[in-house]
Amino acid sequence: MHLVPKTVTSALHADLAPLAFLLGRWAGEGEGEYPTIESFRYGEEVTFSHVGKAFLAYAQRSWSLEDGQPLHAETGYWRCPSPERVEVVLAHPTGHVELAEGSVTGTALTLSSSSVAGTRSAKRVDELVRHVDVAGARLSYELRMAAVSQPLAVHLRGLLRRVAGP
Amino acid sequence: MHLVPKTVTSALHADLAPLAFLLGRWAGEGEGEYPTIESFRYGEEVTFSHVGKAFLAYAQRSWSLEDGQPLHAETGYWRCPSPERVEVVLAHPTGHVELAEGSVTGTALTLSSSSVAGTRSAKRVDELVRHVDVAGARLSYELRMAAVSQPLAVHLRGLLRRVAGP
Repeated sequence: MHLVPKTVTSALHADLAPLAFLLGRWAGEGEGEYPTIESFRYGEEVTFSHVGKAFLAYAQRSWSLEDGQPLHAETGYWRCPSPERVEVVLAHPTGHVELAEGSVTGTALTLSSSSVAGTRSAKRVDELVRHVDVAGARLSYELRMAAVSQPLAVHLRGLLRRVAGP
Repeated sequence: MHLVPKTVTSALHADLAPLAFLLGRWAGEGEGEYPTIESFRYGEEVTFSHVGKAFLAYAQRSWSLEDGQPLHAETGYWRCPSPERVEVVLAHPTGHVELAEGSVTGTALTLSSSSVAGTRSAKRVDELVRHVDVAGARLSYELRMAAVSQPLAVHLRGLLRRVAGP
């Protein structure tokens, strides 16, 4: 009887080979803006890990550069059901869930939300478009958002470095 | 400049007082069944944590009792926008996102999905209903599911013990 899970030393699932460049822990800074808010800068950490199954586990958190207090977070899974095609499922503490699908070309990704749904108390978010570009140990991203009656506009840009290997 | 996040020693956000009984790390075993599959038993770990903001971070993973290999996982956030009302947003590595809303009565919860959406490669899941009951350091739950053309039926039952405090 295995009363604790096996320590994972599994090989990466073959389906995930196109996303292997994301694996590891990334940290850096970003800048947020939106027509309805003051611009702000933030610290950020992102982790992509795996357990040998056909998904990457993803966790993100950001914090204020002024006082270190937590800002946003998001968590979910990345899948690659066929080469060059990526599916992402995310939960946000703002009360949203996000389904996104897109393509991977080399070490660059574009993801567009096919659905963003919110709980009754959540603000309205209509669309999220994410670009991620990895060059060696540098990961840059841009997130555009259509929310609270605004058209699709840049909301976040960040630049992270890999601080722990895959 | 805070290049790393503050170590969280924050008090629990006042909105979350009705959910405080969930905090901590829980571990135990469960049993899975469904009309379309063989029954199975699993080991499981669930964690509810907070960073001082108005959400609990939730992470679950289960593993085979036979060989310790990972089985399911899910991750997301729990909110309590008004006393007795709970909102949950979850991502599943099966390619699903789940929005659930429900009520909390003492240390028991009932949650019904208001939306379960899947990526193009995901199996169809129509509805999830969760009951959670905490008595001191014991957490029992039942999850019923309507999926792959089956009506709502028991899928999972588990019994966990708190193994690390809030």
